[in-house]
Amino acid sequence: MNFPNPTIDRQLQMALAEDIGSGDITSELLLSPNSRTKGRIWAKEEGVLAGMPVAGRIFQLVGQIDFREEASDGQKISPGQTLAVIEGLTLNILQAERLALNFLQRLSGIATQTRKAVDLVGSDGARIVDTRKTTPLWRWLEKYAVRQGGGYNHRLGLFDAVLIKDNHIRAVGGVKEAVKIAREKAGHTLKIEVEITNFQELNEALEAGADIIMLDNMATNEMKKAVSIVNRKALVEASGGITLENVAEISRCGIDIISMGSLTHSVQALDISLDISQEG
Amino acid sequence: MNFPNPTIDRQLQMALAEDIGSGDITSELLLSPNSRTKGRIWAKEEGVLAGMPVAGRIFQLVGQIDFREEASDGQKISPGQTLAVIEGLTLNILQAERLALNFLQRLSGIATQTRKAVDLVGSDGARIVDTRKTTPLWRWLEKYAVRQGGGYNHRLGLFDAVLIKDNHIRAVGGVKEAVKIAREKAGHTLKIEVEITNFQELNEALEAGADIIMLDNMATNEMKKAVSIVNRKALVEASGGITLENVAEISRCGIDIISMGSLTHSVQALDISLDISQEG
Amino acid sequence: MNFPNPTIDRQLQMALAEDIGSGDITSELLLSPNSRTKGRIWAKEEGVLAGMPVAGRIFQLVGQIDFREEASDGQKISPGQTLAVIEGLTLNILQAERLALNFLQRLSGIATQTRKAVDLVGSDGARIVDTRKTTPLWRWLEKYAVRQGGGYNHRLGLFDAVLIKDNHIRAVGGVKEAVKIAREKAGHTLKIEVEITNFQELNEALEAGADIIMLDNMATNEMKKAVSIVNRKALVEASGGITLENVAEISRCGIDIISMGSLTHSVQALDISLDISQEG
Amino acid sequence: MNFPNPTIDRQLQMALAEDIGSGDITSELLLSPNSRTKGRIWAKEEGVLAGMPVAGRIFQLVGQIDFREEASDGQKISPGQTLAVIEGLTLNILQAERLALNFLQRLSGIATQTRKAVDLVGSDGARIVDTRKTTPLWRWLEKYAVRQGGGYNHRLGLFDAVLIKDNHIRAVGGVKEAVKIAREKAGHTLKIEVEITNFQELNEALEAGADIIMLDNMATNEMKKAVSIVNRKALVEASGGITLENVAEISRCGIDIISMGSLTHSVQALDISLDISQEG
Amino acid sequence: MNFPNPTIDRQLQMALAEDIGSGDITSELLLSPNSRTKGRIWAKEEGVLAGMPVAGRIFQLVGQIDFREEASDGQKISPGQTLAVIEGLTLNILQAERLALNFLQRLSGIATQTRKAVDLVGSDGARIVDTRKTTPLWRWLEKYAVRQGGGYNHRLGLFDAVLIKDNHIRAVGGVKEAVKIAREKAGHTLKIEVEITNFQELNEALEAGADIIMLDNMATNEMKKAVSIVNRKALVEASGGITLENVAEISRCGIDIISMGSLTHSVQALDISLDISQEG
Amino acid sequence: MNFPNPTIDRQLQMALAEDIGSGDITSELLLSPNSRTKGRIWAKEEGVLAGMPVAGRIFQLVGQIDFREEASDGQKISPGQTLAVIEGLTLNILQAERLALNFLQRLSGIATQTRKAVDLVGSDGARIVDTRKTTPLWRWLEKYAVRQGGGYNHRLGLFDAVLIKDNHIRAVGGVKEAVKIAREKAGHTLKIEVEITNFQELNEALEAGADIIMLDNMATNEMKKAVSIVNRKALVEASGGITLENVAEISRCGIDIISMGSLTHSVQALDISLDISQEG
Repeated sequence: MNFPNPTIDRQLQMALAEDIGSGDITSELLLSPNSRTKGRIWAKEEGVLAGMPVAGRIFQLVGQIDFREEASDGQKISPGQTLAVIEGLTLNILQAERLALNFLQRLSGIATQTRKAVDLVGSDGARIVDTRKTTPLWRWLEKYAVRQGGGYNHRLGLFDAVLIKDNHIRAVGGVKEAVKIAREKAGHTLKIEVEITNFQELNEALEAGADIIMLDNMATNEMKKAVSIVNRKALVEASGGITLENVAEISRCGIDIISMGSLTHSVQALDISLDISQEG
Repeated sequence: MNFPNPTIDRQLQMALAEDIGSGDITSELLLSPNSRTKGRIWAKEEGVLAGMPVAGRIFQLVGQIDFREEASDGQKISPGQTLAVIEGLTLNILQAERLALNFLQRLSGIATQTRKAVDLVGSDGARIVDTRKTTPLWRWLEKYAVRQGGGYNHRLGLFDAVLIKDNHIRAVGGVKEAVKIAREKAGHTLKIEVEITNFQELNEALEAGADIIMLDNMATNEMKKAVSIVNRKALVEASGGITLENVAEISRCGIDIISMGSLTHSVQALDISLDISQEG
Repeated sequence: MNFPNPTIDRQLQMALAEDIGSGDITSELLLSPNSRTKGRIWAKEEGVLAGMPVAGRIFQLVGQIDFREEASDGQKISPGQTLAVIEGLTLNILQAERLALNFLQRLSGIATQTRKAVDLVGSDGARIVDTRKTTPLWRWLEKYAVRQGGGYNHRLGLFDAVLIKDNHIRAVGGVKEAVKIAREKAGHTLKIEVEITNFQELNEALEAGADIIMLDNMATNEMKKAVSIVNRKALVEASGGITLENVAEISRCGIDIISMGSLTHSVQALDISLDISQEG
Repeated sequence: MNFPNPTIDRQLQMALAEDIGSGDITSELLLSPNSRTKGRIWAKEEGVLAGMPVAGRIFQLVGQIDFREEASDGQKISPGQTLAVIEGLTLNILQAERLALNFLQRLSGIATQTRKAVDLVGSDGARIVDTRKTTPLWRWLEKYAVRQGGGYNHRLGLFDAVLIKDNHIRAVGGVKEAVKIAREKAGHTLKIEVEITNFQELNEALEAGADIIMLDNMATNEMKKAVSIVNRKALVEASGGITLENVAEISRCGIDIISMGSLTHSVQALDISLDISQEG
Repeated sequence: MNFPNPTIDRQLQMALAEDIGSGDITSELLLSPNSRTKGRIWAKEEGVLAGMPVAGRIFQLVGQIDFREEASDGQKISPGQTLAVIEGLTLNILQAERLALNFLQRLSGIATQTRKAVDLVGSDGARIVDTRKTTPLWRWLEKYAVRQGGGYNHRLGLFDAVLIKDNHIRAVGGVKEAVKIAREKAGHTLKIEVEITNFQELNEALEAGADIIMLDNMATNEMKKAVSIVNRKALVEASGGITLENVAEISRCGIDIISMGSLTHSVQALDISLDISQEG
Repeated sequence: MNFPNPTIDRQLQMALAEDIGSGDITSELLLSPNSRTKGRIWAKEEGVLAGMPVAGRIFQLVGQIDFREEASDGQKISPGQTLAVIEGLTLNILQAERLALNFLQRLSGIATQTRKAVDLVGSDGARIVDTRKTTPLWRWLEKYAVRQGGGYNHRLGLFDAVLIKDNHIRAVGGVKEAVKIAREKAGHTLKIEVEITNFQELNEALEAGADIIMLDNMATNEMKKAVSIVNRKALVEASGGITLENVAEISRCGIDIISMGSLTHSVQALDISLDISQEG
């Protein structure tokens, strides 16, 4: 994620508007408009950091707030560790605080969970990748967080890779026919992935030249067999029902790619806090 | 949540754009543009349903998709239960599917978790309420989901209630002074809540006429004492570090309101699926 | 109003676009693109100033225009008084001029009219508050202007306070029932106001625990009786047909809150002008 | 104004969002979601109606509300007269009510005031026209309202006519030079208007071929002389300080166009109301 | 075109989003985030330059990129000539490059083509003007480019000039009636143009006082006759089927205005390139 | 392109706003608001049709206009051929006409030009593909038009394929290193393309496993040699300076992909017209 990104910036502005509305009435009633503050963002638990550039951008969007990173995305952080120090108008900091923390906590939660899966499969195991089960409007940031945890990204949406599922297969009458049409019509920069459910389909997919073969909810012995049949002529992706409990075992089947929806659909926020010290 | 809501509609359109981009290339390559499909949305695990009107709205926004609810928000649902049946152009259904499910799963996850907390405190216990630790841009929907789980809502944002925290107190020199200024200046439709950390502050808050007193991270014996001091002259809210493990005990202190960030910041998605049956 | 506010900023940009369109053709034809100017904003009549931060923000949004306030919002101003001095590219100043003045004139008109009502009721009289009869899209700014004139704000919209009217009462079968349901279901940060038309309803409202009771178009002797019945157990608001002629008398009935739609729906613009002195 | 207009529609959606926010909490708590209502919009005072298509569009945007006009824009209306009857979901009607009335009241106020000026100058008098002193973002609707009152429109903004003022004149060294440059460079569909302050400038403007000559704050005897000098070789516009008191006299000077900022900057809302009758 | 223009800025942001999406993956993978670069924009063929302020604005919108013009819009440029030098973060420059060049090439293509037509008619020939056959959303920039090539602009859209065509004429029963109604109802700053197809209509148009008479697809001898009949009592515009081959001949008929759709609907991009020299 | 597409719809609304502005003044002055019309869209020259769904969508967005296709995108069309018949309110049709035609003419121009290139290389020749040299904001539609002409699409933007150019190569020290990093870090659904300028780089690219190798401005004999070296281990793309004159020869070098910027940067609009027949 490289800022400014025009799409994300617009959504951050809308997210600020959601929280600020007509104004922070408490602060406008009680604080001096010129009061300035220093603050410290720090970790309350262990994990992998993600979201610093987003937090920094949010503080920038509400006004001239100085934001200095003390830790970087992708880094392991410990309880008590300072992540950033900020300084600016108190009114502005209080407007940005909640949104910045909501992102830091969620994105770091994603990175932390991804890291766990990545560590479980080990450095020569399968790639851990995300899915489209992300938070609406924040998919790009969540995919960024997956990368910070050592994971990789699956396609961005419906538009940047061909992924042939059972509806598509039925519509054209078979795996082979589906892959063949896609090969002929899709742009040359697009990879073609197909979801298969049995070895007959697997062979058709291989024959028709699929780039990636997705094994949906297969048993591990079947996965092993599939990997052996594919024999590196395509990438093999495992998908469906994958947890921290079974991810290592699945990786050991020789799978190239393991996609896990839970990385983004069931996130445990990492506890991160902002302390403000009134100045004057 | 009553649809159409102009703000939510605009964000749903943006969320559809995030997933669809320039188009669902796979379906455009392989499906007939006039092919129609029936589908069934069903629960794969037990929980409390939330998000049906959002899902219905999403299917409506992508085209003329018929969406018929078979279960209602707030209802307990069981594995295998049909939640809705849909019918329309296959291309349109596949464009809406992921977004609709992402909302149903997350919002039902929130309702389910809220229900657990509500059931733990019982019908004469404290109200379980949410916080501002919601997903950016989806706060209104998440607060709606909390209500479907039997919970209540805290303020919408910085603009619709006065919530005096330590920064504000320090800026004006004390709890009493802070509440007094807020009373004098804030609109008469606004409630005034103040976060206190000791009994001295509690007494000042009461004396100055605060409507709601927030006990931040207090021990249960202190909470009991606070409740007894307040003696119904204000609402008492407990906040900070509240989990399903301690929520019942805190409620038994006589607390009126218990706010739980985890309801929305650490959501376990409820497993809900959409099955499509190709038609012709 | 604390700038930047993301919602207001976006609307100011749209308002600039409304006036500028494809460009200020006259100035682009006749002025040198590098020509710089000083300007002076000044009052042509007496009143209460409101809108300086909005004007300042507008000049900032069109380019690097230096805007120095010489008078502050809420202050009484006299004919001939300098309110601000500006300096920047002539092309930019001419693009921002009309919009900045349109706001200054209207918001100061609102503050001035509010001040008149506030002065009439005196410092221990009722609070003068606004209504939802504001200019579409500029409610927040108009409510801000009411505060600059010494008034207070009613609710922001349909979402931040419960206001029970006759339709709602009829739907549930009575004032008591309506207030009771609202009490049980609405969030604890929300106040509950009910519009009553007779003393039977007034008693029901009190009994059910309404926070605010609105007397709609009551005669002054009835208002007095209502105030005495309520006896400080709720706030009493007078509404409907209130003018500068009757506001003091109504206040003397012991009313807490007087809401006046005319503050914002029938505004007399305050005459404020911008003089530009070409430089070179 | 012809609906749908994409710009106005977007702004009406934003204006609905301003009022509705996360929802009409009162109605959502107390009304049945399927309850339907009939309503009647009626005049409480005499005036000229303007804004019916806007009101109709607003009711359409919030849902399937049937809106039947009983009176038309531009028509004189009397106290008690029914202007429209509506029917739809009560929840939807209450969401749209305030915005629709805010427009009807303001636009009819503008039309009514314009009609007064138009009647004062009579059918062979000057054209009464508006200025750029309109409400930000609603200029098109306000200009439409001026037409409904029998007035005419001045330019839409800085982009659709050349209007040369003193800054422009000084920048190029004289009225003649300014008009000449504009003539040479501006598009052939653009009229060229120049503001003059004395007869020397008037003669230069005429000689250089200005289409419209604006007399700024001239005394009536000077206006008469100017009209006689111009002798129909250009249109003559009077501007500045024009009120219902002096408009007829100014018109009698032989002026073609009289522009009045007060038509839109100081509007007296026309009292229009909506009565709802609960159905079932 | 004077920047910032709020409408154009918003569209440029959207156009950046179209190209950048979730990020420039190649550069994010391979470049150091702090790497800075110098670049040079230069012409690869001869033509007339247009679009420098747009290009400059684009580089400004993506970050702190220094953009120094070495040539100005409207200027003739030669192969190899440096047009601008830029310097900034490599990541930012690569994000802006394609969009900036797409505009420079297209707008310079328009200016170049316009210049050819303008040179063909000569300095005392007809004005060459554009039409509404422009690229959707970029009409203002394309009309600006036409001016840089020595051309002039026709109306901006449907809203800023009256242009009566055959549908309108048929609807009211004749050219004379149509022009008469327009004269009476349209604002005084609007010019009235009418498209005529024979001399009967021409005479009616003149009699009714049309400001501009458009001869649609007339033969040159008819045009000459039309010019002689009009005899400077209105502007005469030729339209339809005009090319670089016949434009001079048409001009010599005494036509005032020649509108050419091909200036903007069939643009030959001018070849302009950006060379980047990695720094460190 | 499958409609509704939320991104394109929003841009079409903005494009309608660009042309319509405050309204079609001519039609509002002269036409009856209830007048209905039939119209016929027809070809004035030969070519390949593209843009019918866009045109249809535009007519739908301005109101209830019936649009019936008589020809389909991708089809060869002849002078005089009817492409669509429409029917609806005359006011609405005139609002949509220009925008619909602007798209039809441009997109059909792109399809026609693409078809020429495709026919020149023949059915077993190289794929003709587009580039990022498209009209800002309309890339998706232009890429769609390329497909209607028998071409294929290159990447959508910076985000959906890795394309390594000289800047990237220099930054990491060589082709091999650059491709290697991309392979390791980029998502598995992304193809990796690299631009090479000599055979040393070509061999590095092959060795490191590039999916696509772009030969930038190579001579045909060099291209042949490159094709033979690659020997189907990657796709080979020719780019730079390709015209209808040399495209067939380049294809005969054994190239897989030929990308042509001119397909979209220098479009000759196809002449398409709309005739309206007033009804009553």
